[in-house]
Amino acid sequence: MKPNRRLFPSVLVLVMLAFTATVALAADPLPSWKDGPAKQAIVNFVAKVTKTGSPDFVPPDERIATFDNDGTLWAEQPMYFQLFFALDRVKELAPQHPEWKTKEPFASLLKGDVKGALAGGEHAILEIVMATHAGMTTQEFETIVANWIATAKHPRFKRPLTECVYQPMLELLAYLRGNGFKTFIVSGGGIEFMRPWTEKVYGIPPEQVVGSSIQTKYEMRQGKPVLVRLPKIDFIDDKAGKPVGINSHIGRRPVAAFGNSDGDRQMLEWTQGGGGARLLMLVHHDDAKREYAYGPESKIGTFSDALMAEAKTSGWTVISMKDDWKTVFAFEMKK
Amino acid sequence: MKPNRRLFPSVLVLVMLAFTATVALAADPLPSWKDGPAKQAIVNFVAKVTKTGSPDFVPPDERIATFDNDGTLWAEQPMYFQLFFALDRVKELAPQHPEWKTKEPFASLLKGDVKGALAGGEHAILEIVMATHAGMTTQEFETIVANWIATAKHPRFKRPLTECVYQPMLELLAYLRGNGFKTFIVSGGGIEFMRPWTEKVYGIPPEQVVGSSIQTKYEMRQGKPVLVRLPKIDFIDDKAGKPVGINSHIGRRPVAAFGNSDGDRQMLEWTQGGGGARLLMLVHHDDAKREYAYGPESKIGTFSDALMAEAKTSGWTVISMKDDWKTVFAFEMKK
Repeated sequence: MKPNRRLFPSVLVLVMLAFTATVALAADPLPSWKDGPAKQAIVNFVAKVTKTGSPDFVPPDERIATFDNDGTLWAEQPMYFQLFFALDRVKELAPQHPEWKTKEPFASLLKGDVKGALAGGEHAILEIVMATHAGMTTQEFETIVANWIATAKHPRFKRPLTECVYQPMLELLAYLRGNGFKTFIVSGGGIEFMRPWTEKVYGIPPEQVVGSSIQTKYEMRQGKPVLVRLPKIDFIDDKAGKPVGINSHIGRRPVAAFGNSDGDRQMLEWTQGGGGARLLMLVHHDDAKREYAYGPESKIGTFSDALMAEAKTSGWTVISMKDDWKTVFAFEMKK
Repeated sequence: MKPNRRLFPSVLVLVMLAFTATVALAADPLPSWKDGPAKQAIVNFVAKVTKTGSPDFVPPDERIATFDNDGTLWAEQPMYFQLFFALDRVKELAPQHPEWKTKEPFASLLKGDVKGALAGGEHAILEIVMATHAGMTTQEFETIVANWIATAKHPRFKRPLTECVYQPMLELLAYLRGNGFKTFIVSGGGIEFMRPWTEKVYGIPPEQVVGSSIQTKYEMRQGKPVLVRLPKIDFIDDKAGKPVGINSHIGRRPVAAFGNSDGDRQMLEWTQGGGGARLLMLVHHDDAKREYAYGPESKIGTFSDALMAEAKTSGWTVISMKDDWKTVFAFEMKK
């Protein structure tokens, strides 16, 4: 065969591409993680489950990783961000509900007294959720959430909430996906509250988001099919509900699971129960300076002593925000 | 630059690969479809939604296609295959239930009188489902289904049920996936009855299967976490339930939907309601010779006159099994 000289430019490009790829592979995929046991646990796990012929090899189809959202992927203090959303909605809807001026929990909320409003416990929260999350079509709700999240800012960090996400976790998501994992959110938060923005913020598409839900009903409105959001709880994706939600939406057991509180305990147990190599991690909020420090005493994202004990016994890795993360928030990268 | 001769073998391989790819692209991706309006509708749709710059272009992330299962991907006559499963389970469990000898609907079933057993209507079906599909862990149920499907044969075709799938639909699934679509099952059948085999048979992984479900409960059994299947209906993924199931599991509207009966009407309406280019198709069972012919009069997979009328008004494509398919079943390819 006579060499065809016109092929050479393509060969050159190929060689250059190969070189670039090598450099990219050599770069640290987790630059915001300090060298230490947490980072090592991640890298070791990924190496062994992706190595063909390894006894711990996991076929790509079975590389399922589940992530809690509040406190694991984005912050959850001074309160769940979805509660900020509900409060803003109450203010917006108040003119249509003059009765709220004297009716709890709305009366307290409208006076800015969140603590007073939530004193009514679960019943009060349910009332707030139904008043703010139901009664519209799914499409209308999506627009409401998308508009709100585009402008909502964190009261302390003065940054968009979608930038109050943890940079090390974004790197972890990308690293896992780069190694053939499918990444899912499994959160106690509202499934339709998260879906409008998770793809843009985390690279997680709507069909890989599992969360709590209210019931919807199919209807024809002026010849157009709609799904109406009803004021009825459908499913609570928290605690023992997380394995149920995983089974319902994913239909197979994860090999890696990430949480930060007692609400994630059963998800980690269920993931570990499958046997074989597993990566189980809990973010510990111990960094009051850069984020928040809270534990067993907290009402949000409680990390109980019992959970810490189970993590030790079961070989789960506790991530210290203070010691394991060089960078905490995505917005720090923009400074 | 001096040419490096050692690069030539790789160049040759590249050229050969490119040539092979061209041949593959030129081959008909839908060889079991006769040339005609149905095949044309598919090819035209895929061409316009995948063409960058086209007004109908759909980004890959939004290329969601949903498929009914019974009667759309595999046969559903002489009865739903899941009912065969339930009957076999009743026979297997009968020794543990001496009371079934005199208790309906089980007494009739055990005498081989399916019609008599189902005379009890919805209540009878529910009793059969709960007796055969509940009371075990999800893992145990998966094993039961996997073992059963490995040997179950069709009474008329004498072939494994997993080969009584429609060859043209297998080609359609692969063709859509080859064009960046994510393919989902949205079936009235049991979600956990389908998941153990859909990946192998259709290339559809468990997380892309939506179906009817019973409730599950998280428990610790001898230190091992399990999900127990409870004798309680959780969700019926049929008729107006299909858009609800799609919204819950996928979280965005499909751009293509495929069904075969009145149970799929709302799924097609919901898909079409999103606006933009859409592909909506209904398999019509009009081939008594190669498969079955049934329509408005059927108790299974009813294709009512109203559905046929709506298909015409709405521009949905009706696939005639007799006229549009060269091959019907996957097992014909093995002969």
